[in-house]
Amino acid sequence: MANRFVVIMAGGKGERFWPASRMRRPKHLLPIVGDKPMLAQTVDRLEGFIEPKNIFVITDVEQLEGVRDVCPSLPRENFVAEPVGRDTAAAVGLAMLLIKEKDPDASLAMLPADALIRDMVGFQKALDVAFLASEERPQLVTIGIRPTDPATGYGYIQKGDSIGDYNGTKVFKVIEFKEKPDLETAKVYLESGDYYWNAGMFVWSVRAISDALAQFAPKLQSGLDQIENRISEGEDLNELLAELYPELEKISIDFAVMEKADNVVTLSATFDWDDVGAWPAIERHFPKDSNNNVATGEAVFEDCRGNIVVGEKGHLVALIGVDDLIVVNTKDATLVCKKDDAQKIKNLVKGLSPDRV
Amino acid sequence: MANRFVVIMAGGKGERFWPASRMRRPKHLLPIVGDKPMLAQTVDRLEGFIEPKNIFVITDVEQLEGVRDVCPSLPRENFVAEPVGRDTAAAVGLAMLLIKEKDPDASLAMLPADALIRDMVGFQKALDVAFLASEERPQLVTIGIRPTDPATGYGYIQKGDSIGDYNGTKVFKVIEFKEKPDLETAKVYLESGDYYWNAGMFVWSVRAISDALAQFAPKLQSGLDQIENRISEGEDLNELLAELYPELEKISIDFAVMEKADNVVTLSATFDWDDVGAWPAIERHFPKDSNNNVATGEAVFEDCRGNIVVGEKGHLVALIGVDDLIVVNTKDATLVCKKDDAQKIKNLVKGLSPDRV
Repeated sequence: MANRFVVIMAGGKGERFWPASRMRRPKHLLPIVGDKPMLAQTVDRLEGFIEPKNIFVITDVEQLEGVRDVCPSLPRENFVAEPVGRDTAAAVGLAMLLIKEKDPDASLAMLPADALIRDMVGFQKALDVAFLASEERPQLVTIGIRPTDPATGYGYIQKGDSIGDYNGTKVFKVIEFKEKPDLETAKVYLESGDYYWNAGMFVWSVRAISDALAQFAPKLQSGLDQIENRISEGEDLNELLAELYPELEKISIDFAVMEKADNVVTLSATFDWDDVGAWPAIERHFPKDSNNNVATGEAVFEDCRGNIVVGEKGHLVALIGVDDLIVVNTKDATLVCKKDDAQKIKNLVKGLSPDRV
Repeated sequence: MANRFVVIMAGGKGERFWPASRMRRPKHLLPIVGDKPMLAQTVDRLEGFIEPKNIFVITDVEQLEGVRDVCPSLPRENFVAEPVGRDTAAAVGLAMLLIKEKDPDASLAMLPADALIRDMVGFQKALDVAFLASEERPQLVTIGIRPTDPATGYGYIQKGDSIGDYNGTKVFKVIEFKEKPDLETAKVYLESGDYYWNAGMFVWSVRAISDALAQFAPKLQSGLDQIENRISEGEDLNELLAELYPELEKISIDFAVMEKADNVVTLSATFDWDDVGAWPAIERHFPKDSNNNVATGEAVFEDCRGNIVVGEKGHLVALIGVDDLIVVNTKDATLVCKKDDAQKIKNLVKGLSPDRV
């Protein structure tokens, strides 16, 4: 059996979780849901399935230290920092180079650092199926999430015919990747049963993704080739990245490859999944009081309905006569935001002075 | 001219200003409006009119130290602590005893510690008129505030005929004290021009208030007599208060005396006045942004109208998509309250554990 690797993508600023998340302490470094940072939960979820030495984390320079701190089980050299963000296709290329150096015949899974998945057994089973599919043929496997509601915040994957069965799990040809739909379209998707949410979890062999990048993103691939050549001449990876990474084409892997390649397949995850994309998501994971208020930390509610309070130990948050608010208190900042306006947090954060973000 | 004294009433817990105000740091010890605690502003307002040695402060045991700290210009011995609160009539009686000991022919003004008055000249002029009236005849003078709106949160004073003129200011007989009215009644009061707000500012001679207490609150007066007798035997005031003060009749001065005596007179204050009774009051005293938001401390507003933010230096409060809220942040507690529900704060505080209030 070919070697299997996992590369966890731990970039991003997590502005949607301000003020709990900050530049150096983004969402995946926080225990937004659960008692460990989301990244640590992602690493734990692989236990017994992938050896720690085969788990890599791609992050950015500013977070590198914090990311290492929450993953004490992983070897220090398995953390790679992008000097600047160049979107997901460049990160996929970097992951491919890292793994190719270890084993050009390997397959690798690319996983986001900050999704919430509680069913570890189901997760590992789905990942195993995806690896098997990637090992049998040079195909690009994406793990689809069966939608539970007509969400407009995710991209969708339209599945076609089954191409086979791995340990009892069917794998399907992907007909098309769909952009985030409007509500009407999302309802149609949900009803048809032929669409999955795109959770950004991919599995492929080094060879398959290398070929796909060469075919559909030749500019990016030639930048990656340059890095690869100079690594083989013995140059230092970090110095090379500092010099060449900022020059790589900036494009998403979906746009660069997944929407173009004709060897993309998918399987339907049976495990639970929540990308916990913004504050309103957390109320799905905490007990509610009789008025649908949710609190992490100390809170009192008087004549209130449907609020989310995120506090810190030793700090009391008291709400009186308010509905459907998100209230987040940290040592140096407090957010009070209408739940429906949670998508505006990111913009607000962009306008803040650097010491506040 | 008889000696003039001022006794400032600095009791009360200030629950309405939680979480900024606390048991040991009530409203008058905070710079709710202005850059000094309200009590310090009250002392400053007397400058040049009453000598510091003639200004006394009645507070409670728990606040004594804090109260002394914000009034460095007053002699240490001019602070008297009630061992327990026994409502305003007992405090008036205690003030009367204190001043009587200094000069039985004196007049004294009783002033709340936490009202906001900016017109110091107008204030001193009104106080001078009240003293003159109290010195001329044994009458109980209350300073009335000309209402600017049909407020339902204050008691009203119905004035009758003028009984005279002091330095060009007319003084009127009081026909009746009125309880807090409903809105309709308040509108009638406002329109008639014959009603003033009762601001709890009284001026009287030792003799006049002593006679009034003896006549209308004989039970209270006999308790006070007991304290007075034992003081004259050389006993320590604080020990006496600890023993006898808790036994005094608990009743308000309005109910015990002002509503019953027939020698009550009033004058209309020309100075500005705001009792700053609860958080919504503060928006009258801070600049508003174009959406009527008011902030003390650092705040950002996005798509918000009519909010009040009270923060501390170094802590950013961000509001998104909310209207008409009071948001108060302190080190260990945050309040988010609909402006219309500000009267519920007091009740909420009553339900909190002692370390939170």
